[in-house]
Amino acid sequence: VQTSHLKKIALIVEYDGSGYHGFQAQAHPPTVQDDLEQAIERLTGERLRVTCASRTDAGAHAKGQVVSFRTGAPYPPETFVRALNHYLPGQIAILAAHEVPMSFDVRKGATGRRYRYLILNRPVPSPLLRLRAHHVSMALDAAAMDRAAALLLGERDFAPFAGPLVPRGASTRRTLTECQVSRQEDLVNFRVAGSSFLHQQVRRTAGALVQVGLGRLSLDDFRALASRRERSAAGPALPPHGLYLDSVQYTDFPPAQGAGRTA
Amino acid sequence: VQTSHLKKIALIVEYDGSGYHGFQAQAHPPTVQDDLEQAIERLTGERLRVTCASRTDAGAHAKGQVVSFRTGAPYPPETFVRALNHYLPGQIAILAAHEVPMSFDVRKGATGRRYRYLILNRPVPSPLLRLRAHHVSMALDAAAMDRAAALLLGERDFAPFAGPLVPRGASTRRTLTECQVSRQEDLVNFRVAGSSFLHQQVRRTAGALVQVGLGRLSLDDFRALASRRERSAAGPALPPHGLYLDSVQYTDFPPAQGAGRTA
Repeated sequence: VQTSHLKKIALIVEYDGSGYHGFQAQAHPPTVQDDLEQAIERLTGERLRVTCASRTDAGAHAKGQVVSFRTGAPYPPETFVRALNHYLPGQIAILAAHEVPMSFDVRKGATGRRYRYLILNRPVPSPLLRLRAHHVSMALDAAAMDRAAALLLGERDFAPFAGPLVPRGASTRRTLTECQVSRQEDLVNFRVAGSSFLHQQVRRTAGALVQVGLGRLSLDDFRALASRRERSAAGPALPPHGLYLDSVQYTDFPPAQGAGRTA
Repeated sequence: VQTSHLKKIALIVEYDGSGYHGFQAQAHPPTVQDDLEQAIERLTGERLRVTCASRTDAGAHAKGQVVSFRTGAPYPPETFVRALNHYLPGQIAILAAHEVPMSFDVRKGATGRRYRYLILNRPVPSPLLRLRAHHVSMALDAAAMDRAAALLLGERDFAPFAGPLVPRGASTRRTLTECQVSRQEDLVNFRVAGSSFLHQQVRRTAGALVQVGLGRLSLDDFRALASRRERSAAGPALPPHGLYLDSVQYTDFPPAQGAGRTA
């Protein structure tokens, strides 16, 4: 492949994470990355590596993951949508494809990420949502959870919500631009947006908010917990199957003219 | 078991039909009925048969199936909810249980059944909805579908929407009390209610409405099709994974005092 013919493609990807060991390729397949790279190889003949905006955990879902790769294949972006959806298993779909500048950095270039954590709150579990929402059988006070969530807005040290993979010595300061909880019938939705997140930050924040919703933590307790310096002080993470990567924001992506690029 | 100790229990049941060969026990397990009867046997030691309000097809879902059985077990209804949910696989859950009169007939006593057929209407498929909604990639005119659906309200002969299991010679007259189509973003919802339905009636009606939504049938074409006498004249059924049995209505069930019976 002559490098002069290389171009960079960015994909917007939805997946059902239930059957995957997360996004990133590792010793134990299957991962979303493995299946994406295999589909690309079937289309282009190239064995290449894709990079993603957010490494989602095993079992977590995405409605708008962004993935990029360099390719020498001559196809227009629409062809990547149609052909990759043909080769991919039903658990993964390409929603859109765009050619981006070679300087596009899918991870460092992202200016924001939006996640959602979905909780089913009713006495009995739901078969139809069992791999789509975390079940809490006791009544949650979503208004109290929302008041606690609002305390986390802005820039602060999120060390108490950090998971085990956050490197020792790394900064745990982050900025949240949205952090809210709302209820719609039996579903409690925790929505959070920020420039970037610590490992397990959303699932650990959701876990502490559930303690507030159950009345086991007051608003003052939650405020005190969120102000502690100890890593992971806010308690364990909720399970990954309630977590969705909703979207990733960039300054110049997706391009404004790309509305018709979904094949 | 002394018959004097027998009582009748009715369950409200949700299930994900994806992995089942329908509700009814048959030569090829697994069926929802098989798993329910096994869970009841584990709880009560009784090998009994359950009866349902609506025999859903392989792959179709239920949010409010009603199932009844006679049992000599001394447990209160709440125990059936908790214990059966413990024994059942995650694909089935008991939402509520009530003791009903021995005269309660779960099938013939039902005064109404409500179904929903869910269509994902966008260019690309959705991994998160792949076993929950039928995918139509070309744009559907939901308003036109709704106008056609409204033509089916009231009592009429539904022979053109009858499936192969409707017995020859059986009446195909039915009454619809609700028949409407609405869109919410990418989801097109077909809702239908009536006292009872022919085999595949909802899925065949949904199929003809999709032809209207695609512009392949005009409102007049649809009216003419619906007025034909030939069985199945309206065309094939849409696949079962978009179909939900939402609820079943009875005159005296669930009992008004049963609000707390969900364990």
